[in-house]
Amino acid sequence: MPSYTAPVKDMQFILHNLLNVTASDVPGYADLDESFTGAILEEAGKLAGDVLAPLNRIGDIEGCRLENGVVHTPKGFKAAFDALREGGWNGLDLPEEFGGQGLPYVLGMAVGEMFTSANMGFSLYQGLTHGAIGAFLAHGSEDQKATYLPKMVSMEWTGTMNLTEPHCGTDLGMLRTRAEPQEDGTYRITGQKIFISAGEHDLSENIIHLVLAKAPGGGPGTKGISLFIVPKFLVNPDGSLGARNGVKVGNIEHKMGIHGNATCVMNYDDATGWLIGELHGGMRAMFTMMNEERIGVGMQGYAQAEAAYQASLAYARERLQGRAVTGAANPEGPADPLIVHPDIRRMLLEQKSFAEGARAFTLWAAQMIDRSHRMDDAEAEGLVSLLTPVIKGFLTDKGFDAAVAAQQIYGGHGYIEEQGISQFVRDARIAQIYEGANGIQALDLVGRKLAAGGGKYIMAFFDMVKAFIKENEGDAALKEGFLDPLKKASKDLQAAGMFFMAQGMKNPNAALSGAYDFMHMMGHVCLGLMWARMARAAQAALDAGEGDAEFLRAKIATGRFYMARQLPATGMHLARIESGADPVMALDEAAF
Amino acid sequence: MPSYTAPVKDMQFILHNLLNVTASDVPGYADLDESFTGAILEEAGKLAGDVLAPLNRIGDIEGCRLENGVVHTPKGFKAAFDALREGGWNGLDLPEEFGGQGLPYVLGMAVGEMFTSANMGFSLYQGLTHGAIGAFLAHGSEDQKATYLPKMVSMEWTGTMNLTEPHCGTDLGMLRTRAEPQEDGTYRITGQKIFISAGEHDLSENIIHLVLAKAPGGGPGTKGISLFIVPKFLVNPDGSLGARNGVKVGNIEHKMGIHGNATCVMNYDDATGWLIGELHGGMRAMFTMMNEERIGVGMQGYAQAEAAYQASLAYARERLQGRAVTGAANPEGPADPLIVHPDIRRMLLEQKSFAEGARAFTLWAAQMIDRSHRMDDAEAEGLVSLLTPVIKGFLTDKGFDAAVAAQQIYGGHGYIEEQGISQFVRDARIAQIYEGANGIQALDLVGRKLAAGGGKYIMAFFDMVKAFIKENEGDAALKEGFLDPLKKASKDLQAAGMFFMAQGMKNPNAALSGAYDFMHMMGHVCLGLMWARMARAAQAALDAGEGDAEFLRAKIATGRFYMARQLPATGMHLARIESGADPVMALDEAAF
Repeated sequence: MPSYTAPVKDMQFILHNLLNVTASDVPGYADLDESFTGAILEEAGKLAGDVLAPLNRIGDIEGCRLENGVVHTPKGFKAAFDALREGGWNGLDLPEEFGGQGLPYVLGMAVGEMFTSANMGFSLYQGLTHGAIGAFLAHGSEDQKATYLPKMVSMEWTGTMNLTEPHCGTDLGMLRTRAEPQEDGTYRITGQKIFISAGEHDLSENIIHLVLAKAPGGGPGTKGISLFIVPKFLVNPDGSLGARNGVKVGNIEHKMGIHGNATCVMNYDDATGWLIGELHGGMRAMFTMMNEERIGVGMQGYAQAEAAYQASLAYARERLQGRAVTGAANPEGPADPLIVHPDIRRMLLEQKSFAEGARAFTLWAAQMIDRSHRMDDAEAEGLVSLLTPVIKGFLTDKGFDAAVAAQQIYGGHGYIEEQGISQFVRDARIAQIYEGANGIQALDLVGRKLAAGGGKYIMAFFDMVKAFIKENEGDAALKEGFLDPLKKASKDLQAAGMFFMAQGMKNPNAALSGAYDFMHMMGHVCLGLMWARMARAAQAALDAGEGDAEFLRAKIATGRFYMARQLPATGMHLARIESGADPVMALDEAAF
Repeated sequence: MPSYTAPVKDMQFILHNLLNVTASDVPGYADLDESFTGAILEEAGKLAGDVLAPLNRIGDIEGCRLENGVVHTPKGFKAAFDALREGGWNGLDLPEEFGGQGLPYVLGMAVGEMFTSANMGFSLYQGLTHGAIGAFLAHGSEDQKATYLPKMVSMEWTGTMNLTEPHCGTDLGMLRTRAEPQEDGTYRITGQKIFISAGEHDLSENIIHLVLAKAPGGGPGTKGISLFIVPKFLVNPDGSLGARNGVKVGNIEHKMGIHGNATCVMNYDDATGWLIGELHGGMRAMFTMMNEERIGVGMQGYAQAEAAYQASLAYARERLQGRAVTGAANPEGPADPLIVHPDIRRMLLEQKSFAEGARAFTLWAAQMIDRSHRMDDAEAEGLVSLLTPVIKGFLTDKGFDAAVAAQQIYGGHGYIEEQGISQFVRDARIAQIYEGANGIQALDLVGRKLAAGGGKYIMAFFDMVKAFIKENEGDAALKEGFLDPLKKASKDLQAAGMFFMAQGMKNPNAALSGAYDFMHMMGHVCLGLMWARMARAAQAALDAGEGDAEFLRAKIATGRFYMARQLPATGMHLARIESGADPVMALDEAAF
């Protein structure tokens, strides 16, 4: 069974060598010195490796069980959840006034990756709670915050998001769940929601559902939608739990993966709900949750890649099969370890260069989120908003590919469930689908985010890439391996943007037909930029004689792989995009 | 639950418009007129759609059960197997002297695709038997053929291939199963084999195992290996079944997919075996089986893509979500069907253009196999040998991608097992792994097949592509959409080959580091060539006013998609290859 070791050294490199957090002007960052972040990451890593990872396969095998309206989580989940709660991990990056530790989001993201790598099904119980808390912070009244947040931050209570209904997921305008206003200011909520992660379980005292529903008078489609708080148990004025509310789990889904998480059908039958945020402003409130969730889902992509990488690396070092073409590497043994073979190294490096590049990209984005939250930095907010669909869509696609590559390294043994590697493939798969399927992310990017602010965020993005290249063009060590490929990829991306603009209004299908490829191109440019920055930072540390030289040299070598072997994908994506809408739209629907 | 409709029209187009089988000089092809092949394909399609497909999900849910040494296959499998046997389907392309119908392999391949699309786990019971028969035909003595083949052709008895052991799959030189010669000319076989598909089950009276084992005196490594016939029940001189042999199922594996097939651990304990083929010539005998099996596995790739495509197409037509950007397509309904959206069409066309291109490629290759078997055409044999790793590796990789795309179209519903689409993803995954993992296919292609015959087969391949382009360069309808991209892709492939040659002996890791990309490039060129040929054939039929015009126009439109959106991958693969061995080999093993 795969074990998991938290990549503390790599996270420390990103925080301190790449992002240089203590030198940043973001409030709270000055405290993030190396020994402080190191201590937190080590501690979280222990919990992840020692407590959560050993439960990963148990969660996969046992799954969740619904009996008489009660959902039983897999053996050991409750104790692990208690350990997570008692360690105060959920509150790490949440406001102190509600019991959190008020540390930056960038640190919460790093810790969240560890928990997700170790046990994705389990970590969703916390992740959804964290997302729901975000909605309370952004849209809740002072009363609502005071009533719910302390218990949710401490994870005595957990949270959920209720969007999807059987007939509508993406197209929420069609939703049918109704909210009838009552004289006391509450609403009666009635309807059915599906795919509700952590919708019902035995881990917490109460579950606070955030539910999208239509209240009268809001107009058709998404305009009529509002967001409601529907607690499983009503909360008395003194904070104690009151009567059971009219919400029940109808079923739990049988899924391809994340079996440890209870994905529920939730039935609302005259449940008492409280409006959160503005009446008929539910879509806006939902997007607040959704944006943070999407970045969290992008993280799931590389978190699974990291876990799968570690497992396949261990296997490639142990399994003896064949001989290195350049001469036996293990002449005393019956064969050489798999890792001597170039094609095995290719698959390992695809995973490693992706996971490390994605981690840098996401932690960099988390820093931008900290800037936007802690400094009201509108430019940072705009940039993160632009990149959110890339983080979600690109990182989950590539994370899945990485898990598939890890499984491939195992050969036939990878197909056997007892090895545990198939689980990473099956678990990673959901991240491409939920919180807006990746095709929707591509549409969001091309149809909405490119044009946002009159195009100023995408221009700022290109300026950032150009500025980096310009600033470093005198650096001979960076030029061939990093700057040249980055320049080429960035040029491809700009050409694709120009193509969309030229087609523009007269043929919207051209942009929509190329949106997915654009998202991938942009992902490669982002990871390419991160790798170029990491290579520079690693070289600087080597030049200064600081840090672990072997680690720093590996960082540069891994980056070279990414630039040489992954960045050329942008040319392919550009060619596809420039073929326009015709190849995609020409076939009659009936002729498929 | 997905249903399955056999693509008879497309197969007929390939057989008659593309391959023009009745005009071919291959013995037996003259009989393959349209009504004859149509009748057979319709009949096979009915069995696939009406009998096998409804059992697909049952097989997935129930799996196989081992009780007291007996393996029980899922409910309904026995009746379906009887139907397959009674219809004589296994013997379709097997020699008449052993009870077969003696029809060409090209037809057997088309029928095999249907069974595999409908139920991959089930079809393996027959597929393995067919492969074992191939080994008997090539290497068995007259006596052995007479004893075993009639019952195996009729499928009263099934067959297996026993290669893998716990510590060795690819590297068979390490195998430990021993064969001790006895005075009566038989051998005592002792050892353990794993991953034995259809190793034990309740579908047939007897199971004939073909087992690789080491007999004394053959030298080290693979040189000592021989192939043995080890029947589950010994066969009496009169053909009746005798005593149980010393072979037992030890366990059945819990796998990610193909649950309907019993993948067994087989324990041989002084089992009686008969040498088949030459003593210490086991590797050669195994490759006879293996080559046909590999083409069969490539077929599994697109067979799963076809089944997943049909399911996702039906879903995309039914599921209402969102509106077409160019105006509502279903204004009376609450939303438009998914298929109006360009990104959904992209995913459908990726599947469709792959499945149809792969089918054409494989049936074309099957025709070459018929040439080689029926006419001793050495050039055809050489070409198929060159392309076998491409068929196996490329078609299974892309088949898996297609199944993943199909699942993506379902959104969240695709992750729920009840929908049945996850099964295609899980089942298709094994085809990338077994019969030589795809990395091994790439090594076989680049390390062995390119240089075979002094490079004459790869030269013949390039000549074939060039000849087609030259022959048609006056055809304005083909030029831009088909010939130009084919020429570009073929040039990329040649450049990659030149790069390998230039690096050649001085740096074998350069070729090995790029082998996987080369295999994919070559796959794209092959499918590009097939699409160009199909477009020409479709246009010719349209010009002649023959056939179903809507189908023929769809064929051309689908081909245009493939050329515009898939062929540009060759540029990316070339860039990766030309980056050489350094990015892959530079990182120290300890620094991963």
